[in-house]
Amino acid sequence: MNAAKPPIDFYFDFSSPYGYIASELVDGFEQRVGRAVTWRPMLLGPILKLTGQPPLIEIPIKGDYARRDFARSARHHKIAYRHPEKFPIGTVAAMRAFYWTHDHDHGQARALAKALFRAYFSQGHDIGSVPAVLEVARGAGIDAAGLAAALEDPALKERAKREVDCAVAARVFGSPYFIVDGEPFWGVDRMGMAEEWIRTGGW
Amino acid sequence: MNAAKPPIDFYFDFSSPYGYIASELVDGFEQRVGRAVTWRPMLLGPILKLTGQPPLIEIPIKGDYARRDFARSARHHKIAYRHPEKFPIGTVAAMRAFYWTHDHDHGQARALAKALFRAYFSQGHDIGSVPAVLEVARGAGIDAAGLAAALEDPALKERAKREVDCAVAARVFGSPYFIVDGEPFWGVDRMGMAEEWIRTGGW
Repeated sequence: MNAAKPPIDFYFDFSSPYGYIASELVDGFEQRVGRAVTWRPMLLGPILKLTGQPPLIEIPIKGDYARRDFARSARHHKIAYRHPEKFPIGTVAAMRAFYWTHDHDHGQARALAKALFRAYFSQGHDIGSVPAVLEVARGAGIDAAGLAAALEDPALKERAKREVDCAVAARVFGSPYFIVDGEPFWGVDRMGMAEEWIRTGGW
Repeated sequence: MNAAKPPIDFYFDFSSPYGYIASELVDGFEQRVGRAVTWRPMLLGPILKLTGQPPLIEIPIKGDYARRDFARSARHHKIAYRHPEKFPIGTVAAMRAFYWTHDHDHGQARALAKALFRAYFSQGHDIGSVPAVLEVARGAGIDAAGLAAALEDPALKERAKREVDCAVAARVFGSPYFIVDGEPFWGVDRMGMAEEWIRTGGW
């Protein structure tokens, strides 16, 4: 890792299929570019409101394309994908759990994020509720009792809300969304461009 | 060219920066995949209405990203790009001129399309009006008097309108939009995936 360079921001929502695909690809990306990646779950709901956009899946015609493309993109990258029965879902509990874990152990937070994404997008579990998040956290070896208490704590809610504010301030409008030295890249299909940007220093 | 396989549909609007970039890349794409490409200009305005979407550039936050990304994507592909002063514009005259030319000479229609795109996206010309389209057509060696007469003809208007209806029927919702053996690929950044799809027979 190039410690002299600031980390790359990886914004996503736990209810985003393309965020999930990116989460499965980002470790390889990180290794190839030799720069650390900061995982930053956020909430697409309030962000889409700022852009006046409905959730992708609700847009006529385009939503049907997206539904087909989620699975096609996953297959393209050899990633297991089963479109969730309930979709999209609220992911505030998942996001709060991530930041609480992150403040204790970065590596464990990343493992939790991957486990949450896989539970939702390949194992058929709805991760929208606190009990569902706790179950995934337990499976990932996280102190579920500590997490359960924290999820009731206004301080954690505030902590997580600030992260969403931070995404808004960074002008994030979709998931996944990468920022490399101030340069934004939106979408799984731009990860290759981001990689090239880092390798070449931009163009 | 593989004449046994049906052509690949390439839908675009002459006011679409990504359509322009695709138009500069599509000949190489066509040669690599060994399949003919049918150029199909359409009008994004009525199509966006069906999806309830505003023009990309008008979407808060995302529009700013797009504006930055137009030029960045063009530079990435080493394509000249100057963002037009007046943008977006109505392209019904350009589209009609394309289909009139196409019905006489496919190759000339493709040359006209490229000339129209370059006039608008790299040479600083507004191609929204009939006189502007005629000037570009003249420069491309097309019978401008014949075209001028045809542009007044309700038959050509109807002919072009049917093409937009056809794009709607094909569930096109953006530009560029490719359809390969029924499989849709939206965006310049999916041309590589479309190419891989053809090469591998899909996945």
